[in-house]
Amino acid sequence: MDAIDLLKNRRSCRNFSDIPIDDDVLNDILEVGLNAASGGNTQPCTIIKIRDKDRKSKLKDLLGQNFIEKSDTVLVFLLDFYKQKRWCEINKAPYGRNRSFLEFIISLEDVMCVAQSIECACTLKGIGSVYLGTPNLRYEEIKELLELPELTIPVLAMCLGNVKGTLNSRKKLQKDAVIFDEKYKKLNDDEIERYYEEKYQNNNTYINDKNSYLIDELYNIASMVGGKDFADKVKANVEKNGYINPAQKLFGLHYNPIEMIGMNQWIWNFFKEQGFDFLDETFHINRLDVK
Amino acid sequence: MDAIDLLKNRRSCRNFSDIPIDDDVLNDILEVGLNAASGGNTQPCTIIKIRDKDRKSKLKDLLGQNFIEKSDTVLVFLLDFYKQKRWCEINKAPYGRNRSFLEFIISLEDVMCVAQSIECACTLKGIGSVYLGTPNLRYEEIKELLELPELTIPVLAMCLGNVKGTLNSRKKLQKDAVIFDEKYKKLNDDEIERYYEEKYQNNNTYINDKNSYLIDELYNIASMVGGKDFADKVKANVEKNGYINPAQKLFGLHYNPIEMIGMNQWIWNFFKEQGFDFLDETFHINRLDVK
Repeated sequence: MDAIDLLKNRRSCRNFSDIPIDDDVLNDILEVGLNAASGGNTQPCTIIKIRDKDRKSKLKDLLGQNFIEKSDTVLVFLLDFYKQKRWCEINKAPYGRNRSFLEFIISLEDVMCVAQSIECACTLKGIGSVYLGTPNLRYEEIKELLELPELTIPVLAMCLGNVKGTLNSRKKLQKDAVIFDEKYKKLNDDEIERYYEEKYQNNNTYINDKNSYLIDELYNIASMVGGKDFADKVKANVEKNGYINPAQKLFGLHYNPIEMIGMNQWIWNFFKEQGFDFLDETFHINRLDVK
Repeated sequence: MDAIDLLKNRRSCRNFSDIPIDDDVLNDILEVGLNAASGGNTQPCTIIKIRDKDRKSKLKDLLGQNFIEKSDTVLVFLLDFYKQKRWCEINKAPYGRNRSFLEFIISLEDVMCVAQSIECACTLKGIGSVYLGTPNLRYEEIKELLELPELTIPVLAMCLGNVKGTLNSRKKLQKDAVIFDEKYKKLNDDEIERYYEEKYQNNNTYINDKNSYLIDELYNIASMVGGKDFADKVKANVEKNGYINPAQKLFGLHYNPIEMIGMNQWIWNFFKEQGFDFLDETFHINRLDVK
């Protein structure tokens, strides 16, 4: 397969062999990340490279995936304004990126240019990799474990290792559902149903004695998100069908919106503790007041 | 060069030839994006593919870079919850991603997995590409031009085309300044000075009659960011040196923090208009109140 075919067929790896990654190969892969594009070339990304067995074991406990311990290397990607700000302090330069929501967005994009370049390099080198979004659920603990200073946020992790067995492919939305020509195309309901059905293949969760509590769980979530009338409709839908459909399962139960919304304040508290105060009172300076 | 060497040497392209990109090559590149990793495989990214001359010309006017018109294709990457939410509505499923800051972060990461996979594919195929962060400065106008519905945010654009001339390389931070082993390493001041000096090569802006107004500009910015005492120190530093140093130029003048911070409210208004209300009162539900 040529390079493009390899990328077209990339898959996440969650099953790693005991064979370590060759040091030269790992360095090659990381160098690709060092050369990634960056807005204004400001490079706000720092990578913590973890290969120590004990530390990987601690990360496994925190992030709750057994394959972390089996992986060769865990990379934790930080959005890092600490170095830049210190450089500015030394050089008597003003620094305000940590108070700007736009700078946060741009810098998160920069971090991802690094991470995804590395992910592509893994695929090209035949090294298995998988992203872990879970550092976002364990900010304080990751901060302590990795001794993160102010002005850093751990935004993502990635496990790397040699592949064991075969990789599972996952169904993706087809092209016409993702790429639109010239302007946004509002898909009609039939198209939406068809595209998601092709992806999720009517993967329904049929209700039986053992999982019927899920109906109440879904009812409660629907009620908090959309009110009682909506929750009644959700419940009636499940009872009529005899199953929880993929949309209800994915966005209702799996990524429980009440938990996700409920974390807003906690995330913001951590951001603030780390010196990112773009959501604070500074947020309410009007754009036109300033210039 | 093999694939990894190509990626190690990637450079942004801002000078495009008139030779169009072959359709098969463009499709190959886009297919790589379609297969990108996605948190929970929820795929919240939509790409608007723009090849129409008039529309590219309008984008050039909005985003202010002449090379946009000369590029073959402009891709605008959207964080798109519209399709998902509609799918949930049709299927009587609760949907709350647009009210969660964490879901915004994860989804922005997903969008970047798509975008950066495409950028890597361009490099491998010998197609020139460059990111444009400027859609973030023209939300309303981009929304109108591309007819974006609610629950979409244009987060990034990319120009693609065949390369004209040679690509300029940009100095990057060296490995020891970006990758730390096992835990965060607080670089000391000497290290920070050395790493950034290697990158910016003492690229100072010497003060003369024509640019001396920059001292006042920098003073005002420093004063608003750090107060009068700090601004006095900044000014004294410039006058003593006879130049504006790279830190002052980059984070003081070029990415003017007052403008960046001043956009917070405007960005949030646009997000809210688009139905993303994770910064609103819902933001203040305490994590523990919910479960």
